[in-house]
Amino acid sequence: MRNPAQMPVVGMAGGGQLARMTQQAAIALGVSLRVLAGSADESAARAVADARIGDDRALDDLLAFAKGCDVVTFDHEHVPGPHIEALEAAGAPCRPGAAALRHAQDKLVMRERLSGFGAPCPAFGHVPADAPRPFLEAFARDHGLPLVLKATRGGYDGKGVWVVETLDGAAALVARLTAEGVDLMAEEHVPFRRELAALVARSPYGQGAAYPIVETVQENGVCVEVVSPAPGLDGDAAAEAQRLALDIAERLGVTGLLAVELFETEAGLLVNELAMRPHNSGHWTIEGARTSQFEQHLRAVLDLPLGSVEPTAPYTVMANVLGGEEPEDADVYPRYVHVMAHDPAVKVHFYGKDVRPGRKIGHVTALGGDLAEVRERARHAADYLRWGTRMGEMR
Amino acid sequence: MRNPAQMPVVGMAGGGQLARMTQQAAIALGVSLRVLAGSADESAARAVADARIGDDRALDDLLAFAKGCDVVTFDHEHVPGPHIEALEAAGAPCRPGAAALRHAQDKLVMRERLSGFGAPCPAFGHVPADAPRPFLEAFARDHGLPLVLKATRGGYDGKGVWVVETLDGAAALVARLTAEGVDLMAEEHVPFRRELAALVARSPYGQGAAYPIVETVQENGVCVEVVSPAPGLDGDAAAEAQRLALDIAERLGVTGLLAVELFETEAGLLVNELAMRPHNSGHWTIEGARTSQFEQHLRAVLDLPLGSVEPTAPYTVMANVLGGEEPEDADVYPRYVHVMAHDPAVKVHFYGKDVRPGRKIGHVTALGGDLAEVRERARHAADYLRWGTRMGEMR
Repeated sequence: MRNPAQMPVVGMAGGGQLARMTQQAAIALGVSLRVLAGSADESAARAVADARIGDDRALDDLLAFAKGCDVVTFDHEHVPGPHIEALEAAGAPCRPGAAALRHAQDKLVMRERLSGFGAPCPAFGHVPADAPRPFLEAFARDHGLPLVLKATRGGYDGKGVWVVETLDGAAALVARLTAEGVDLMAEEHVPFRRELAALVARSPYGQGAAYPIVETVQENGVCVEVVSPAPGLDGDAAAEAQRLALDIAERLGVTGLLAVELFETEAGLLVNELAMRPHNSGHWTIEGARTSQFEQHLRAVLDLPLGSVEPTAPYTVMANVLGGEEPEDADVYPRYVHVMAHDPAVKVHFYGKDVRPGRKIGHVTALGGDLAEVRERARHAADYLRWGTRMGEMR
Repeated sequence: MRNPAQMPVVGMAGGGQLARMTQQAAIALGVSLRVLAGSADESAARAVADARIGDDRALDDLLAFAKGCDVVTFDHEHVPGPHIEALEAAGAPCRPGAAALRHAQDKLVMRERLSGFGAPCPAFGHVPADAPRPFLEAFARDHGLPLVLKATRGGYDGKGVWVVETLDGAAALVARLTAEGVDLMAEEHVPFRRELAALVARSPYGQGAAYPIVETVQENGVCVEVVSPAPGLDGDAAAEAQRLALDIAERLGVTGLLAVELFETEAGLLVNELAMRPHNSGHWTIEGARTSQFEQHLRAVLDLPLGSVEPTAPYTVMANVLGGEEPEDADVYPRYVHVMAHDPAVKVHFYGKDVRPGRKIGHVTALGGDLAEVRERARHAADYLRWGTRMGEMR
């Protein structure tokens, strides 16, 4: 007899909000989610029965964590690749595996691989640490200024990305960062119309599923709003973006979710970044798709048949709730009451995090048939939760 | 600064699937859910970070559990009323409170109160333990045979309810149960067309919200299927049922959810049972309503503004997954894979429970515009999860 203890155990390294929201899906599926969190007050550790406390960048902690898990997955990209290889060598199926995940961990590896099979990317090059100036001059001559410098590893939410306007500025930044041990690449600065994201799932069996293409709106490198489907995107372009993401997932051997951040340019789509996990651009799926990205990720890493990606409403808008800047902005609860009273149909998500300026502490989702109205509802809720009655001056 | 630890803590006594599913809503709201479970392998204890192990019928355990909770609520009706009064006296806000909850704990108290303000109920009477025969004769003369005997307290899922065909049969059953200390009432046997349920929420502030009226299908006293909205129910009758449930919630001072099970008869609606918690007849709301009953219960007991009860699809059908009878029926996981492959849009919920014959181990939900198709999809999934390829002969 298969008892509940024999239902699969999915281990997720990392204790952030992605693991926290994955727990909602695990509860429904009857799957046991085990998380490896840095401390008991991390977002996921507050929500999960089986939270192990440890360092997800330490191999011993990872090996102890993986024991008894049917599969190991990740809520971020920062588990060192060699540790993932060691987990795999020890018999713990990692999904995605180290060989796939390195393309989400190292932007240069990703660019080289993607350009290698013709996926559209901005021009790029590795900045040589010993003689950066000639490289920068040649790169600027070929691709113009400003140019973009990126840390090849470790960046997120706009961190690790710098737009530089002059060659002197670029050289100074490279000198400083190289001294700090940061490995750098250069990319052409792409004049994009807007940013899109393609979210797909792929199972070890090889089944794929593609969500509708969404528009993502960033401010200061942080995603503030996601609109599904991307307004005005024609069917051919949407299908092309889905095919591109499914193709990348297959070629890279991704198991689980793959989010492909895209630039929409005059000349077509370009790949910006990859993530192999539930992604901020997919939070809208909790209410807006028949299968949430969190359920889909669990289904994919467990090699279960994937769920329907059908939208549940004509438009879904997700807005991130960021912590406000003033001490008074941190007192979120009265605002939470206001937002619920103001719009009984907006869905409020809080991550169990302390409020800090600019930090993602939650998100809100609105759905409906009138895009302008849905967007306004989501924005109102997110802005009010951040700033309260000061939202008028801040927005 | 309000940190996550200052977000409210809701304590829920009981470790069943209702507390488990409430955790999904608590994760979204950023509320901390603490459960009091009988053991670490109960349904909710497997899912909740803050699970306390103890006896929810022991006052000491309840008092220790309530310490630090902003509000205490319940996943069943079996916490003794005097203990709830003691919790309230100790300063723990209980929602619903003892004064309301006794109407869901004692069927005779409920009947007397509801008839007192004119809510439509079947004829009923208390069976005197010392001289039952003359009472039974008079009751059968007035209301006919068969008649229904009910334990006034402690029943659930058809347990504690007996339909008796003859006076001799009734007298023998009363003698046996009275000797076991069971307090009994008699009710007329109502020839109903079908069973309906009204689910409403009421907050301490007094705000009310009513979900669409659903049809519930029972087999052997156990709910097997819920259809929302109840097919063919005209708007006036639906509005009347919603008003009746809201009226009962207000008169009884219910805080949180109230489920009113109803008989639809030739002469109109009659109240069957009450429950003051998330209810099996409301599981469809997880996907089928903008606000799930679990989120609504949390919002109501926390005195937050209630959420929208708007349906997300024309029809939603929920079917319970019961444990099959044969040893082979207990091996659910391969069936789970089949069901997901067969219908990628059906939503599967498992409660983390051991499989036992007839036990509610999960439920499935299907949504759409064509009732017959939606119903067939939900039934197929539930039957297959119970019986696998033997479903054809069993159904």
